[in-house]
Amino acid sequence: MSTRTELGEGPQIAERLLDSAAGPIAAVARAVRQRGIDLVVIAARGTSDHAAIYAQYVLGARNGLPVALAAPSLASLYGQTPRLGNALVLGISQSGRSPDVVAVLADARRQGALTVGITNDPASSLAQAVEHVVPLHAGAERGVAATKTYLASVMLIAMLSGALRGDADSEAELRALPDALRAALDVEAQVEAIAATRSGDDRCIVLARGFQYATAREWALKIKELAYVLADPYSGADFQHGPIALVQPGFPVLAVATSGPALPGMIELLGRLREGRARLLVLSDDPTALAIGEGVPLPAGVPEWLAPLTAIIPAQLYAWHLARARGLDPEAPRNLSKVTLTR
Amino acid sequence: MSTRTELGEGPQIAERLLDSAAGPIAAVARAVRQRGIDLVVIAARGTSDHAAIYAQYVLGARNGLPVALAAPSLASLYGQTPRLGNALVLGISQSGRSPDVVAVLADARRQGALTVGITNDPASSLAQAVEHVVPLHAGAERGVAATKTYLASVMLIAMLSGALRGDADSEAELRALPDALRAALDVEAQVEAIAATRSGDDRCIVLARGFQYATAREWALKIKELAYVLADPYSGADFQHGPIALVQPGFPVLAVATSGPALPGMIELLGRLREGRARLLVLSDDPTALAIGEGVPLPAGVPEWLAPLTAIIPAQLYAWHLARARGLDPEAPRNLSKVTLTR
Repeated sequence: MSTRTELGEGPQIAERLLDSAAGPIAAVARAVRQRGIDLVVIAARGTSDHAAIYAQYVLGARNGLPVALAAPSLASLYGQTPRLGNALVLGISQSGRSPDVVAVLADARRQGALTVGITNDPASSLAQAVEHVVPLHAGAERGVAATKTYLASVMLIAMLSGALRGDADSEAELRALPDALRAALDVEAQVEAIAATRSGDDRCIVLARGFQYATAREWALKIKELAYVLADPYSGADFQHGPIALVQPGFPVLAVATSGPALPGMIELLGRLREGRARLLVLSDDPTALAIGEGVPLPAGVPEWLAPLTAIIPAQLYAWHLARARGLDPEAPRNLSKVTLTR
Repeated sequence: MSTRTELGEGPQIAERLLDSAAGPIAAVARAVRQRGIDLVVIAARGTSDHAAIYAQYVLGARNGLPVALAAPSLASLYGQTPRLGNALVLGISQSGRSPDVVAVLADARRQGALTVGITNDPASSLAQAVEHVVPLHAGAERGVAATKTYLASVMLIAMLSGALRGDADSEAELRALPDALRAALDVEAQVEAIAATRSGDDRCIVLARGFQYATAREWALKIKELAYVLADPYSGADFQHGPIALVQPGFPVLAVATSGPALPGMIELLGRLREGRARLLVLSDDPTALAIGEGVPLPAGVPEWLAPLTAIIPAQLYAWHLARARGLDPEAPRNLSKVTLTR
């Protein structure tokens, strides 16, 4: 199965997880409540690290939980895991075989933390190291680009946020998501056409803020991995106070700007970049934001906390088509290995 | 006073902080111990955010404290600060006027957390919002590039790590640092010559791992802000499992690789990049690492936890000279504002 095929599987993956993962996620939420846990620590690398950034926003803003991103090197290089007594420690690894992620979880469990492993392989060493296993159920991932893993990890974290709140709104919003993901796939022809016009760029900036910051990070990574374009992701807030110095007329800037408290600031920043004649591509569900640059519409009516799931679909499609437009084979990127075995 | 002049002030800044900040830092360390604090949360943006990354490694590896980097947007955009009951919450802001950083600290103090503000302005709103003020004492910073602030913030976090351990080794190692910083300035002519040969590049990757990951982030930011080169920073661990796909013959890669547990992995990665004929520039105190590419020697004998302070000096000098080599004025970068006022 190819990356291209896998890019179309988002809606089914979300649908499957809503059923199959509801039980394990509810068990984790119960344990969090019973133990009065007030800190989440996440160990992850690469694409999974971006799912962790999503967790930082969604669990922080919707569930009041501070989220620390563990530096897995602390365990693997320095033999030191910080004290994680009463934390929920979450490891995310598609293969379940990242030695440094496994090391953090094993150590956390010894310390008595609530340990959870999100992985595609229930027989992996990550699964064996933790108390609660939440399977990604993404199916075998053949495409090297790990597009399914990202979507499934973000979906599980959204489900955890919903389960911790335990409210009917969250449940209904999650249930409505697969249809929105199907709608997000509709822009493929437009995305392909835009990618063709941008195949000559060898660098770009990718901007977003708030919940969508994770999307900017993941979008930039896929552009680098598949199309070999140096894509540098930034929070809009950080970008405007320094790196904006890079922007000169024609500089390519990609942005994700969806409805919610982060939108006005993004629209202001994009307006400033348009004045500086940056070449803007904007993924948005908002007509004003879409009109600032070349706009790719996202499905309307998706609540902000779930919009990273709909936004990543055209973003991934863009990276894939950009690779093709640059005469590359996104199914066989050079130097890319499937399993992360960092020690 | 110019950025160029400020680049030479590192040794004096470190010397001054060892005296003037010892008292306030000791008071914070006492409060951490008395209250049995087991979590550090840091609110910062831009350059200060990179000092926070250093804190994540140094307080994690040497003091067993998990460090969460607060997403300041949570407070400013979503009106939600996570529960920070028994945390040390640290705000870093040169001006002390970043509204979102101040918002996190004010909220944390209301929640009863131990609040500390690291700032250059003891009359700022950050200073007023916190229980403990630790002055940067960096003197008025005129250069837009905030090079002094970064060095001073990292120095204060190193001093906090030392005070929390309260051991004689840490104290002696810190006391020896100003001389090492003076030695680090000696490579300026070499750095200037190298920058001249690389003025045609408009993009590069910056790599490091462990304690030096913060250096890679800060080096890349300065290269972007001053020289308008798209510099993308990566942990060596993450880079080799994906973005390494970018590297083709002649691709510019800058690296920081200093003695310690992270070094063997960095040497292996740099060797792989040399095979792929990347154009390597390596800052290191290790002869093997220096010989892999164009090597810029760092002072020997600096312990790993303090090596980010010596490494940032040639890194900042490189960014400044690269800007000049590209015909730009690093004293007046376009679009760059001195004070971060993100809401």
